Amino acid sequence: MALKNDRFLKACRREPVDRTPVWFMRQAGRYQAEYRALRERYTLLEICRRPELCARVTALPVRQLGVDAAILFSDIMVPLGPMGIDYELKENVGPVIANPIRSLEDVEALRPLEPEAELPYVFDTIRLLVQELDVPLIGFAGGPFTLASYVIEGRPTRTFVETKSLMYRAPDVWHALMERLTDGVVRHLRAQAAAGAHALQVFDSWVGALEVRDYQQYVLPYMRRLFAETADLGVPRIHFGVGAGHLLPWMREAGGEVIGVDWRVPLADAWERVGDGVAVQGNLDPVLLLAPDHVLKARVEEILDSVRGRRGHIFNLGHGVLPATDPDKLKRVVEWVHQRGGDTR
Amino acid sequence: MALKNDRFLKACRREPVDRTPVWFMRQAGRYQAEYRALRERYTLLEICRRPELCARVTALPVRQLGVDAAILFSDIMVPLGPMGIDYELKENVGPVIANPIRSLEDVEALRPLEPEAELPYVFDTIRLLVQELDVPLIGFAGGPFTLASYVIEGRPTRTFVETKSLMYRAPDVWHALMERLTDGVVRHLRAQAAAGAHALQVFDSWVGALEVRDYQQYVLPYMRRLFAETADLGVPRIHFGVGAGHLLPWMREAGGEVIGVDWRVPLADAWERVGDGVAVQGNLDPVLLLAPDHVLKARVEEILDSVRGRRGHIFNLGHGVLPATDPDKLKRVVEWVHQRGGDTR
Repeated sequence: MALKNDRFLKACRREPVDRTPVWFMRQAGRYQAEYRALRERYTLLEICRRPELCARVTALPVRQLGVDAAILFSDIMVPLGPMGIDYELKENVGPVIANPIRSLEDVEALRPLEPEAELPYVFDTIRLLVQELDVPLIGFAGGPFTLASYVIEGRPTRTFVETKSLMYRAPDVWHALMERLTDGVVRHLRAQAAAGAHALQVFDSWVGALEVRDYQQYVLPYMRRLFAETADLGVPRIHFGVGAGHLLPWMREAGGEVIGVDWRVPLADAWERVGDGVAVQGNLDPVLLLAPDHVLKARVEEILDSVRGRRGHIFNLGHGVLPATDPDKLKRVVEWVHQRGGDTR
Repeated sequence: MALKNDRFLKACRREPVDRTPVWFMRQAGRYQAEYRALRERYTLLEICRRPELCARVTALPVRQLGVDAAILFSDIMVPLGPMGIDYELKENVGPVIANPIRSLEDVEALRPLEPEAELPYVFDTIRLLVQELDVPLIGFAGGPFTLASYVIEGRPTRTFVETKSLMYRAPDVWHALMERLTDGVVRHLRAQAAAGAHALQVFDSWVGALEVRDYQQYVLPYMRRLFAETADLGVPRIHFGVGAGHLLPWMREAGGEVIGVDWRVPLADAWERVGDGVAVQGNLDPVLLLAPDHVLKARVEEILDSVRGRRGHIFNLGHGVLPATDPDKLKRVVEWVHQRGGDTR
């Protein structure tokens, strides 16, 4: 189906838009009554493995909220299963791994990802969605650092002690793991674009835990390769991290047509740091969706005003929608963003 | 006892020093076999309530590691007990509060802190220590935002959903709570200085979760008051936050003779952001203490080199010592820092 609404893709390319495009990270999720009802019958991964159901979950917020893009319903852990990572998505915890990776042998036991053969349901879902949707579909993957942190720690962490100490103690293991993960991520992103995804987001969510020097030494080379090896796809790539204000210039250097930023740094300041050559996506604090309308609306307008007249702003949150969010709030944010017009406002 | 070693205080005042002073946040703690043995018999709070024992725990790392300052062994929750907060320090979790603060009535039920009457053991410990130690003793308190986040959430949080949504939904409750907490913190800091503490650190550990605008509106006025109302004490105040690189200019504006920074931002960049008029403390990633010596030493030297020739650097970690740390590593870091000399190097 031809896209009726391509303002998201135009903004990614820094072309003029009639209205600032808007979508929300985790716009399909626990805040929706329909999703909660489905999750009583299916696990998250069971939804992912049923293309029709997964397409329905992906498309629901597009209709409900009026957002300008859909994002594939999936999880960053999905491509790691066929690579040999035995993971579980534990409720209220996150990914828990039965066999954490700590040695060269562990890394060498990982298998190369064959996305179409091993994750056919992902690409079937994408093919269904691109026929059905009239807005662009965003595919995605986790950044290699973020994936590495899960597979090394074995579960979510605040301190990244195992991850960083492996980096420092056993750089050979670290680099071997990052090579494998980067290969897998590249293949997974390429297959999503081949199936029809119009854009790709790389969630390097936890990379902000690193100091600049460690990012440069242990992560940047892989992010650079990831973006180099997906450049020929011709689809915009969004490069996102949380709490990564200090890394913005290097994330920009690594690549991506769009830099996604969290709420901590004012959006205009973030744009200064990455320069005019890229689009930016962000950056409302998701907790503001729990604020009264007058507070919320003022903040939405402040963000829009702060980058007024610059081409290439995609409105989004600074992180995913929180489960406590009222869907009507999200709907109103979409309306407010759209009411303010686009580049010609 | 007169201080034999006052290079920490000299650096706080940006005076020349023979060697860069060094101490470590959480230098008394789980990484020490002696501490672990004590904790089999006493809870953390039981140690705090026994001045002789608490002084011993505080002084132990000074002798063991050769650091240039001691920090009172205590917890940021300690002054909240007499104010009416019923808290528990839960192993591997953190502070858990039986009666979270969510309404104006909750706030109004809080009592003003009378430190000397209600926490006599804290000041008895300080008086013991200043007689006994030949390095300066640092007293401390949590920042009002950080304390507010615990008492509102009721337990440690990653998202600060309850804290921020109270700020947005009920600014009257928020401001009333921050007033009370600031009062308590000021009284607690003043009483520590009166008992003999040579310096004070304000741990606004979680303030980095806020965007700049929220910091300015909801936190900065209280931090400004906190520093104004402790200025006459004549002791250096260290103002510290984690992941707060984006807030540094405003933390500087709020006050403190020393700005403490975490590992994310290179120390020289952090110093640029706060300007020459203050000393800086930091900023080795605590995970580097788990790295091999050659990696660790190179990082220690990089930090020292990056601020070489500037007056007012206090070497520290970017956050507290991790339990997995080998005490010998800390000892070697102290030696390496001292070997490199001071401002005249």
